[in-house]
Amino acid sequence: MGSAIAANLVRASHEVAVWNRSANKAGPLIELGATLAASPRAAAEGRDMVFTMLGDDGALQAVLSGEQGLYAGLARGAVHVSMSTIGVHTADEVAAGHAERGQGFVSAPVFGRPEAAIAAKLFIVTAGDQAALQQASGPFENISQRVFHVGAKPSNANLVKLCGNFMILAAIESLAEAMTLADAGGVPKRQLLEVLTGTLFDAPVYRNYGAILIEERFRPAGFAAPWGLKDMRLAGDAAADQGIAMPFLEILKQHLIETIAREGGDIDWSGIAKTVAAKKIA
Amino acid sequence: MGSAIAANLVRASHEVAVWNRSANKAGPLIELGATLAASPRAAAEGRDMVFTMLGDDGALQAVLSGEQGLYAGLARGAVHVSMSTIGVHTADEVAAGHAERGQGFVSAPVFGRPEAAIAAKLFIVTAGDQAALQQASGPFENISQRVFHVGAKPSNANLVKLCGNFMILAAIESLAEAMTLADAGGVPKRQLLEVLTGTLFDAPVYRNYGAILIEERFRPAGFAAPWGLKDMRLAGDAAADQGIAMPFLEILKQHLIETIAREGGDIDWSGIAKTVAAKKIA
Amino acid sequence: MGSAIAANLVRASHEVAVWNRSANKAGPLIELGATLAASPRAAAEGRDMVFTMLGDDGALQAVLSGEQGLYAGLARGAVHVSMSTIGVHTADEVAAGHAERGQGFVSAPVFGRPEAAIAAKLFIVTAGDQAALQQASGPFENISQRVFHVGAKPSNANLVKLCGNFMILAAIESLAEAMTLADAGGVPKRQLLEVLTGTLFDAPVYRNYGAILIEERFRPAGFAAPWGLKDMRLAGDAAADQGIAMPFLEILKQHLIETIAREGGDIDWSGIAKTVAAKKIA
Amino acid sequence: MGSAIAANLVRASHEVAVWNRSANKAGPLIELGATLAASPRAAAEGRDMVFTMLGDDGALQAVLSGEQGLYAGLARGAVHVSMSTIGVHTADEVAAGHAERGQGFVSAPVFGRPEAAIAAKLFIVTAGDQAALQQASGPFENISQRVFHVGAKPSNANLVKLCGNFMILAAIESLAEAMTLADAGGVPKRQLLEVLTGTLFDAPVYRNYGAILIEERFRPAGFAAPWGLKDMRLAGDAAADQGIAMPFLEILKQHLIETIAREGGDIDWSGIAKTVAAKKIA
Repeated sequence: MGSAIAANLVRASHEVAVWNRSANKAGPLIELGATLAASPRAAAEGRDMVFTMLGDDGALQAVLSGEQGLYAGLARGAVHVSMSTIGVHTADEVAAGHAERGQGFVSAPVFGRPEAAIAAKLFIVTAGDQAALQQASGPFENISQRVFHVGAKPSNANLVKLCGNFMILAAIESLAEAMTLADAGGVPKRQLLEVLTGTLFDAPVYRNYGAILIEERFRPAGFAAPWGLKDMRLAGDAAADQGIAMPFLEILKQHLIETIAREGGDIDWSGIAKTVAAKKIA
Repeated sequence: MGSAIAANLVRASHEVAVWNRSANKAGPLIELGATLAASPRAAAEGRDMVFTMLGDDGALQAVLSGEQGLYAGLARGAVHVSMSTIGVHTADEVAAGHAERGQGFVSAPVFGRPEAAIAAKLFIVTAGDQAALQQASGPFENISQRVFHVGAKPSNANLVKLCGNFMILAAIESLAEAMTLADAGGVPKRQLLEVLTGTLFDAPVYRNYGAILIEERFRPAGFAAPWGLKDMRLAGDAAADQGIAMPFLEILKQHLIETIAREGGDIDWSGIAKTVAAKKIA
Repeated sequence: MGSAIAANLVRASHEVAVWNRSANKAGPLIELGATLAASPRAAAEGRDMVFTMLGDDGALQAVLSGEQGLYAGLARGAVHVSMSTIGVHTADEVAAGHAERGQGFVSAPVFGRPEAAIAAKLFIVTAGDQAALQQASGPFENISQRVFHVGAKPSNANLVKLCGNFMILAAIESLAEAMTLADAGGVPKRQLLEVLTGTLFDAPVYRNYGAILIEERFRPAGFAAPWGLKDMRLAGDAAADQGIAMPFLEILKQHLIETIAREGGDIDWSGIAKTVAAKKIA
Repeated sequence: MGSAIAANLVRASHEVAVWNRSANKAGPLIELGATLAASPRAAAEGRDMVFTMLGDDGALQAVLSGEQGLYAGLARGAVHVSMSTIGVHTADEVAAGHAERGQGFVSAPVFGRPEAAIAAKLFIVTAGDQAALQQASGPFENISQRVFHVGAKPSNANLVKLCGNFMILAAIESLAEAMTLADAGGVPKRQLLEVLTGTLFDAPVYRNYGAILIEERFRPAGFAAPWGLKDMRLAGDAAADQGIAMPFLEILKQHLIETIAREGGDIDWSGIAKTVAAKKIA
């Protein structure tokens, strides 16, 4: 995701320095015209803005802290745009970390598979203070089809992203249960999906995942189950902090655990459908 | 629903005889040009086709059986089109009942609120043998915007209808959980919904029920919770017959029970959102 | 179970006629001194009391009805003692069936494994009218270690029996989840069980099933999973009739389905522990 | 709990210095012969052993760290006995903290209500290295009726304690569901409990909590619901770390949240029975 986004920024004539834990992954970007930075700090120094796209909360914090980290490199008034799907609590901590250094912070997680990132068709959910958001608006146009502002508190964007991922997996589970029932009763899955998408469920989430479930295209994973579990746990942490019970979310966590146990960590998160289908008396 | 459908059939110049347990409800239809029948049997005698739209399995069976019932009135070769949301098992029994009398049977439950019935914009899910379906196709055009054929076994249409209602309520529960979480974290429900419907969830089920949840329009009920519970139980019965586990469905049953216990039987089934929201530590 | 009970009645010098669907199974009882009856009706005719122990609701109803059934054979004032684990609704129907024929009816399901039946150490839970209960009290002493009266309405005994089976399986599931967690963290299952039974959980259900779980003695089944599923469904039916939500019960039903799907129908109901243990990421 | 334990140690002629966040709570202990320490550090300095009994993980960590903390006060070779119900992860951290300072560490959470602590009838679950355990064995005799050793890794004791609390609450939930069903069907809760404790469920957990549920003695709380929720979350964290799914545990968390939302934080954790009973259609 990160390299596709960076490529679109380079193509849009931004001056881009890139850093990756594995420097060789930056090769194609260098060819496109980006500069290679030796550290997160070096990537940030002397820049108006730095974008991060990392795997989880720990990876982001590792890139931020230490002598060679972003906190050390980013100038006062410069802006960090965090596109990773991280937890609400971590986003609040990072926001505080930047605030005490006089640095701007925008949280901007995205919806969209890698193809969408390449085609500059991401959806960006963003939150942060007005000035920082303003500064990021140009680059956002170069990488996305639409931007949703959800408030001044950066972590709100992460909360919405986690809610969105929960909604997607809940839709997958619903489809999986309904398709299993229909199929057992003699109605082909495809026929059920046609009725659904032809009536009240005419949305990408059902068309895309419906096809994946019918064709059982669970490998290679578009979004691997362990990442899905990470996100559901982050959503669960946010719910626990708010004292909220989310029974569907708990089912999803359990099904992801079971799916990984059964199939291994390389299966797509929609592979929970295999777990649902397996719970059938022959 | 039944009277709206009948009215559209009358308007389409079909010759229609109507019967209702409360005869006076037929008044407006008589004014439109329908004839009043004294019993289900009388409504069926001498007709090519009879349509039923009843509240539950028991009501349908009551109308079918006995001296004044449809079984007694319907000629050999005539067709019964059952539009009620009934159980798979009952549909199989009714199919067998008609078969042994040489009568045709089409199961044709519908998706759509009463407004859609009035506007002849229902979605019909139908199954049955080809000849009977053919016979019903004209009237179907007069009352619906689209017909989905799902096979030769009539109960398949009921199975699909139950799956559809399950999918709708699962979407409502997902929305309710996500909105409760977002709201508790400072993101207005409306803002979350905009992101959802602006990205992967651009479908009527989310737009319609999303608005209902935001505005808390749970009364008067469009579809009352006890009817929802009946349907979820019918889906559960079908799942049990097939030896299938459907954890989301079980949650939905529990939430409907809890919602009816808490709010009374006059609340809309989307009122499960109140139950979700109530499970929050202040 | 039935033959062990019958044997104890013969040994206690009751005059016993026996009937079984497979007549040859009655051999050992005949040797002990019982008479062979040619039909349920014949077993009941001319007797004060008839005991039934059958697999499920349908089997009991088959034995009761028809020309050769118990209803036809039992004299007015004679008593039917039903020891099967059947549903509340069926028990109510059977009670009504006997009442309209002037026959007495006692519901008397039992707790205890086959060994307990042989040793005349069953626990009997019984309900019915006082006179009928009085009549059955002698035979009850010959087959059980203790009798619990739970009211005048026969189906109350079945309700208590179903609650009891639910409690047993809930204890098994709890143990299975706790043992899986302890074991994963490095505490042997046996050590956890010692703490539990040495403190608050010093009861047969934990000692017996704890040992089964530790030794994974799931075959041959003491009580096969499909029978457990039948009972949990009967409990669920009773809950649905009363408008009650029982989330633990729903989990148990799902785990039984999953266990049968995974292991086959010959596994003991405590085999749900295998299903729990399987849901672990390696 | 802490003061009852300390009193028994004083009575057993140990030389005891006490520290509490609210110094005045130590009054009765001073009267018994204990010395008042000005800080955790002071309580530990010059002693062989220090016992802690604190509300949660954070409180324990606060007492350990800083200039006036236990880490600073405890001599090399002296032993810290932690009796709090804390998380597995925290116990591992504390064990490491002591190990790097050459201090001994024993984890020793307890089962038992305050009355049991006063009567020196606690059950202690303990883990740690042999020498440290040996050192603690004398004082353990003065405060408990039985000690269970569960291994050399201190956090194992905490894992067992969390499993135990999970088992207790699972037993309460099972009882609550069964009693609600029985009661709705006309069987008094007391009658059901008699059958259960008279057969397979003859254990303190059922007798004690059964009586509480029947008499609805939920206030004042013996163990308040928010503490129960804390423990269930700690168990859930341990399960997540091990990649385990525990569906009963998830239900319990949800019911505790709902109960606190409904009833306030002063209700006993067995008050989940009110939440179960409330989910009934009138």
